[in-house]
Amino acid sequence: MSHRGERVYINDVAPRDGLQIEKQWVTTEDKIRLIDGLSTTGLDKIEATSFVSPKAIPNLADAAKVVEGIRRVPGVDIVVLVPNVKGCERALASGVDEINLVMSASDSHSRANLRMTPEQSLQQFAEIIRLAQGSGVFINASLSTTFGCPFDGDVSEARVVGFVERLLELGVQGVSLCDTTGMANPAQVARLCESVVTRWSRTPFTLHVHNTRGMGLANCLAAWQSGIQHFDAALGGLGGCPFAPGATGNVCTEDLVHMFEQMGVDTGVDLEALIALSATLPELVGHDVPGQVVKAGTSDRRYPCPAGL
Amino acid sequence: MSHRGERVYINDVAPRDGLQIEKQWVTTEDKIRLIDGLSTTGLDKIEATSFVSPKAIPNLADAAKVVEGIRRVPGVDIVVLVPNVKGCERALASGVDEINLVMSASDSHSRANLRMTPEQSLQQFAEIIRLAQGSGVFINASLSTTFGCPFDGDVSEARVVGFVERLLELGVQGVSLCDTTGMANPAQVARLCESVVTRWSRTPFTLHVHNTRGMGLANCLAAWQSGIQHFDAALGGLGGCPFAPGATGNVCTEDLVHMFEQMGVDTGVDLEALIALSATLPELVGHDVPGQVVKAGTSDRRYPCPAGL
Repeated sequence: MSHRGERVYINDVAPRDGLQIEKQWVTTEDKIRLIDGLSTTGLDKIEATSFVSPKAIPNLADAAKVVEGIRRVPGVDIVVLVPNVKGCERALASGVDEINLVMSASDSHSRANLRMTPEQSLQQFAEIIRLAQGSGVFINASLSTTFGCPFDGDVSEARVVGFVERLLELGVQGVSLCDTTGMANPAQVARLCESVVTRWSRTPFTLHVHNTRGMGLANCLAAWQSGIQHFDAALGGLGGCPFAPGATGNVCTEDLVHMFEQMGVDTGVDLEALIALSATLPELVGHDVPGQVVKAGTSDRRYPCPAGL
Repeated sequence: MSHRGERVYINDVAPRDGLQIEKQWVTTEDKIRLIDGLSTTGLDKIEATSFVSPKAIPNLADAAKVVEGIRRVPGVDIVVLVPNVKGCERALASGVDEINLVMSASDSHSRANLRMTPEQSLQQFAEIIRLAQGSGVFINASLSTTFGCPFDGDVSEARVVGFVERLLELGVQGVSLCDTTGMANPAQVARLCESVVTRWSRTPFTLHVHNTRGMGLANCLAAWQSGIQHFDAALGGLGGCPFAPGATGNVCTEDLVHMFEQMGVDTGVDLEALIALSATLPELVGHDVPGQVVKAGTSDRRYPCPAGL
């Protein structure tokens, strides 16, 4: 099986991308417990919260308290989503390792999700980056609807590559290619990843996919074969998108770790610990979650042979 | 994205591998309606039933009536599972296009599922093949637990290749590599498929995977990249394995067709018709089914942009 990188690095976005759309309020204490649990499993990063307006996302109104309350583990970067200059100021004051700026590659999703055009996003990013540069935090940008928009449809590779170029010119240090509503397919993922990894070989690109149409792991496989080593995923497969009903969540962290480890690709993650933590999610969020390995067990699981044979 | 074959051929095994483990009795009429529905969607084959003892699998006790009652569509092969010589006689009398013999690659699964050793299976196959040869039916053999056994664990590639060799020597014309309890991973699938396709380039090999640990589509992708063009799948993702509780079913036909069609790989299948048929399954079997595209819609689905923007 062709591939370039042996080691993969996983960013668990469940505390942010997962919890932001849950109906049930998750207490600050429980959020801290979840993040502290994730921090001990060997993940590379955790997207802990969003310094967004509490009016926009009430679920994450406790962002500062969460970041203040978590235990920091050496080697595990704490990432927060930063929607604007004010959010960036709060994030920098909180002492996080990485800020994640978000823009959409498509016009309608940009308007629906961010209430501005992609151009306006880029202008705002310039201000945020000026503020963050020199602070020591890593600056990542997530490009939503990279693989298609639920309103506008196809998003051309040229358009995506154009935005990546401008983000890097602005001083962004890493870019996440986001399949926001699970429209990507493996051939498309392979093409785009191959293209950006070849052109910007020193920039860490992250694949962020949702499992909406069951292709989450297949898309991660295709990206890995094309040289991508960084992945966003959510414990238990939490997450979703308010604009695409019926959609399941982000690709599931433990299912992704399980696939790579079974393939002999090092993730650095303690899978058993991750599965144990995932098993606590249904109580935390009040419903069943989509992850499959937590239900079926790993491929190494053995069953007793039926009696009498 | 590297691959060998542009066209893929799909065998829907829902009427057999799916319905055999359902708790709710599906009437002969409903089975016929399901198979007739599948026959109009452009699938290559349909595994319609099993000529097994009604005591062993009560759900498929109406095998002969089902085959007799379905509408035969030119170009769509009707396959039946044949567990023994008697089953083969009944299958040949019923006028099917293909018989599918089943053995296990691992000892414990062979005993648990078939109550015989793999050697005994091969001996029985010799008799069945003598009976079937010259009748015009295509003779396929399915090798269960090819990628691992839920009781014995790892099954070596050498062992699998050895069984494939013996099956072909006996006169089997096609071989299905079956991941019976969803233990396979894409690297393993790629290695084995590459190996058999290279060695027996004129034999049609079929990949049969379950989505137990979420890797169903990723495994199909890896097999296709390795030269496999034939796939088993079940409408709605029906199926499962009595020996691996918590397991979800076969890889879902419409999700598989959707992935390939989105990638630009021709399946010959009318996806909309398949999705419409899948939507009838929950009523037929009395519970929700795992397929995701039927819930989320295809990647081409567009949503109205939220009002007021």
